[in-house]
Amino acid sequence: MAVYVYKFGGTSVGSIERIKAVAERVKNARDQGNQMIVVVSAMSGETNRLIALAHDAQSEPDTREMDALISTGEQVTSALLSMALREIGCPACSYTGGQVRILTDSVHTKARIRSIDDKRLRADLESGNVVVVAGFQGIDEHGNITTLGRGGSDTTAVAIAAALKADECCIYTDVDGVYTTDPRIEPKARRLDKITFEEMLEMASLGSKVLQIRSVEFAGKYNVALRVLSSFKEGKGTLITYEESQMESALISGIAFNRDEAKLTITGVPDLPGVASKILGPIAEANIDVDMIIQNIGEDGATNFTFTVHRNDFAKAKALLDTICEKLGAKKVISDDTIVKVSIVGVGMRSHAGIANTMFKTLADEGINIQMIATSEIKISVVVAEKYLELAVRALHAAFELDKEPCES
Amino acid sequence: MAVYVYKFGGTSVGSIERIKAVAERVKNARDQGNQMIVVVSAMSGETNRLIALAHDAQSEPDTREMDALISTGEQVTSALLSMALREIGCPACSYTGGQVRILTDSVHTKARIRSIDDKRLRADLESGNVVVVAGFQGIDEHGNITTLGRGGSDTTAVAIAAALKADECCIYTDVDGVYTTDPRIEPKARRLDKITFEEMLEMASLGSKVLQIRSVEFAGKYNVALRVLSSFKEGKGTLITYEESQMESALISGIAFNRDEAKLTITGVPDLPGVASKILGPIAEANIDVDMIIQNIGEDGATNFTFTVHRNDFAKAKALLDTICEKLGAKKVISDDTIVKVSIVGVGMRSHAGIANTMFKTLADEGINIQMIATSEIKISVVVAEKYLELAVRALHAAFELDKEPCES
Repeated sequence: MAVYVYKFGGTSVGSIERIKAVAERVKNARDQGNQMIVVVSAMSGETNRLIALAHDAQSEPDTREMDALISTGEQVTSALLSMALREIGCPACSYTGGQVRILTDSVHTKARIRSIDDKRLRADLESGNVVVVAGFQGIDEHGNITTLGRGGSDTTAVAIAAALKADECCIYTDVDGVYTTDPRIEPKARRLDKITFEEMLEMASLGSKVLQIRSVEFAGKYNVALRVLSSFKEGKGTLITYEESQMESALISGIAFNRDEAKLTITGVPDLPGVASKILGPIAEANIDVDMIIQNIGEDGATNFTFTVHRNDFAKAKALLDTICEKLGAKKVISDDTIVKVSIVGVGMRSHAGIANTMFKTLADEGINIQMIATSEIKISVVVAEKYLELAVRALHAAFELDKEPCES
Repeated sequence: MAVYVYKFGGTSVGSIERIKAVAERVKNARDQGNQMIVVVSAMSGETNRLIALAHDAQSEPDTREMDALISTGEQVTSALLSMALREIGCPACSYTGGQVRILTDSVHTKARIRSIDDKRLRADLESGNVVVVAGFQGIDEHGNITTLGRGGSDTTAVAIAAALKADECCIYTDVDGVYTTDPRIEPKARRLDKITFEEMLEMASLGSKVLQIRSVEFAGKYNVALRVLSSFKEGKGTLITYEESQMESALISGIAFNRDEAKLTITGVPDLPGVASKILGPIAEANIDVDMIIQNIGEDGATNFTFTVHRNDFAKAKALLDTICEKLGAKKVISDDTIVKVSIVGVGMRSHAGIANTMFKTLADEGINIQMIATSEIKISVVVAEKYLELAVRALHAAFELDKEPCES
């Protein structure tokens, strides 16, 4: 008897009709002889409604109270889904995170799961029930309600799958899988049957927001087979596995991009030890996350230093950098918020040389100037002018033949 | 340092503005050096909204799931009130029923409280917090969420007041106290400063719906000083006390009435042992509550048997009685759903003779025919034709001088 964890997001349970459709899907899976745990999010719009109420009540809502407030959204969905299951003759029981002892730390609104007591879950599954769990929430050691941060229901699902050693954790969402790139940019984008956890992490952090990153890390750590698939249409979705696929010989799995970054350069910095921390220290203290960092020798032994930040932080970072420039006796600050980052991601590049060169040549052939380059084990990222985004993505998609099914090796 | 439990109903917390007004009131009481526990209902309309969702999900919603669903309404209010208190500089902490260990039996949707663990409440009060508790809910011994039935937040407040031996339990509502009768019927109706638990029980069960009966019973049993007062205007409200008031020499405290009853008579019943149970047995089996019962000897040694039921059950009861009439060989069934019950209530009648006579004479003087009479220790009820309701209430209100402040004895 296989054990499955299904997770349904806010749009998938956004109305009673959709909750009933979810109930049908879950019942079918149970009728095939599987033990089923279902994790649900709040009905779409509900969390935002509650957060708005909180901000009306308190200018900066207390985080403990915020958790007590917004955790009700998932509790409502779990009870309604359990009712909808019973309505079609499928025995079911709903639980809050606290009731199934999802124990977390006490960092309200972004708590981390410490442990799950699987006894109640197992007993309920054995008695034939579908177990419906309110996602996104837990309790701390003092019995306070905590939440796991936005998208935390994915993490709940993966954590329960890990605790129960489930056969598969299926994340139902409004997309039908992970694509080689964004189909809105490249219509030839193809759904991947499989992707590795590492690739998924790189894809997600680069802007292909399908799953909450933390849940993917969690799944990788505990070796939970994770599948992303659509609530609204049939299909096998994309399986995210720990094992590197031996079946697919693709060099790269996908092309990710990020339009949310802006670039800052400080030129003519006297090249002394500790310069990097003198520049990035004040930026970090202002709680600004830095993504790519490049340091190059420029003229006269002075250094040019470039980094990217989120566009929301661009103005704040620029103002800070102007002060730093003066303090260090550097030459000037150059800033640009019309850039994008484009990345190719794939575990295949570990064992294949020449992939970086193919990328750079492809972009050069299209007349696209590369402003920054950063590489990791399984990804290469470049910064280019924003206007080239679509051109760059499509050219790379074609160059790496991502529209074609990978051959069997 | 006095300990107060304040309870606010749905209309009192029906919007963020009202929640803020409640916060001000609570803060004022705390600033005067009191330890404050606040019990809240769901925002008005919220419970009905959730119940409607439940009925969309399941034709006959499972009661365990119903409790998990509707208990969220109070949880939302408690978190919002706690935020509103913090916003005005008043430290506060919200709790669900389960978190403060309001342990109940497992009868979902109408559970009864078994015990309250007051440790967490006391510790929080000692640390200076206002403790905000979600009303209407608890958990059973298995950790399932339970609810106490409509109006159960009153019971929560009284139970907490009993557990903490609070100085007073103040029920804030949309009326400013208990009146000698309904002011819509008799504009001269006067707010009572005090009323005994027994009188309150008789008043409430007879249709003056101010407090949930169960909470009054509970308060009486545990000797909790209960006060009913208005959320929206200033005033001392009505204190409901265990001790019979020595200060007020009033013979009766108020006049209650009930328009929801209907009368059924079966005549010419052969007078044999067990006749009452042969008539009322099938009525009880059909889950119809019977209120007043009168059995009289009629002609020829046969018995006439009369009782009242809720008007909602009138048709059902009449159909049953027709069958019973045939089976018993009785004469006929007479039915009337245009009656009302009018009652005078007061602990004073225990020690004063002639009160019943004053009542009957007053009604006779107005030409009102009395159809049934029932008496208890502290109340006398009569059934009269519906058209006489207002006349009867006003005449009795005047006869017992309820519009006048009672003299000091």
